[in-house]
Amino acid sequence: MIVTHTHHIQTSGQGDARDVTKLVAGDLARAAVTAGIVNIAVIGSTAGITTIEFEPGAVSDLNGLLERLAPRDGEYRHHLRWGDDNGSSHVRAALVGPSITIPIVDRALCLGTWQQIVLLEFDTQARRREVIVQLIG
Amino acid sequence: MIVTHTHHIQTSGQGDARDVTKLVAGDLARAAVTAGIVNIAVIGSTAGITTIEFEPGAVSDLNGLLERLAPRDGEYRHHLRWGDDNGSSHVRAALVGPSITIPIVDRALCLGTWQQIVLLEFDTQARRREVIVQLIG
Amino acid sequence: MIVTHTHHIQTSGQGDARDVTKLVAGDLARAAVTAGIVNIAVIGSTAGITTIEFEPGAVSDLNGLLERLAPRDGEYRHHLRWGDDNGSSHVRAALVGPSITIPIVDRALCLGTWQQIVLLEFDTQARRREVIVQLIG
Repeated sequence: MIVTHTHHIQTSGQGDARDVTKLVAGDLARAAVTAGIVNIAVIGSTAGITTIEFEPGAVSDLNGLLERLAPRDGEYRHHLRWGDDNGSSHVRAALVGPSITIPIVDRALCLGTWQQIVLLEFDTQARRREVIVQLIG
Repeated sequence: MIVTHTHHIQTSGQGDARDVTKLVAGDLARAAVTAGIVNIAVIGSTAGITTIEFEPGAVSDLNGLLERLAPRDGEYRHHLRWGDDNGSSHVRAALVGPSITIPIVDRALCLGTWQQIVLLEFDTQARRREVIVQLIG
Repeated sequence: MIVTHTHHIQTSGQGDARDVTKLVAGDLARAAVTAGIVNIAVIGSTAGITTIEFEPGAVSDLNGLLERLAPRDGEYRHHLRWGDDNGSSHVRAALVGPSITIPIVDRALCLGTWQQIVLLEFDTQARRREVIVQLIG
């Protein structure tokens, strides 16, 4: 069985992180998937999906690492091409990846108590993101 | 068809890496999945799953990179919140990701000869990890 | 339904990136998968799969970051083991990951206009890569 849900989430730009665990758990509760997987994907090349303990400190630590790796005000060849200012966003997104797959066992997401599914906004401007939740079981 | 296996693996703390390829291959051998995918996921926000050539040198090189990116003794806002000492663990785990999906073709895992599936422990203390192997085919 | 396609792609060595989106979209067009997921995986421990805006600037920026993280001419314990010169390749591959899962909705890949699926070659020599496209729906 395949069940698809699409969610639209407004972000405030680079560094914004949104906990989407409840959205995914709600989709799972409404589906009759006992065992299987759920893939959570954000559309676009300047955002990412991963899991983290969703508390402001850990999120800030992750954003701090990404800023050291790919500084927002760094020099990027991507800027030369389009006059864009979001070279840091593309690099961060390619590294983190746009999707994650989580197992479903006994109608529940296999996540730790302190582990949440997060949408990470890497773009330099606010964006309306489309997150696809695909349940397979 | 969906087949679920759960494995418990004791780790020794940050830097420990365990080759779980044989566990996954064993689960596949017992299932009647000819073609499909297998998702391997570790529960929790301070561990990761990826593939690497599982020999001590390459594993040490990867741990060395992660130590440079997120030093164990660095300063983390996560520490201020809980009095924890595992800010480096959360950051590393969010970057690597908690799961991986590998194709199955002709009843075999699609891996290279020198490519193993590894559980990476990022937490600062020894942990008993739960790894979910979800076969879909 | 499970549909498997295998593609062979010749790369020119470290830093080479190949847009495989059309290959995957072609596989999807020939299959009767209306909704589901597609997993794209490269076999081996010195290459990766992710998504990026596939233009030379962004690809160069990503390669530049990976070179800073794991310099090709750096010192690696992996080199001591085999006399290899591709320690940087293994570390990069473990960080980026060998596969990605993309949702399928209404017979289309859920990708942004500026988001392409890329094979990243990390090995220090030219390689003939095997990419598995596994459609599940």
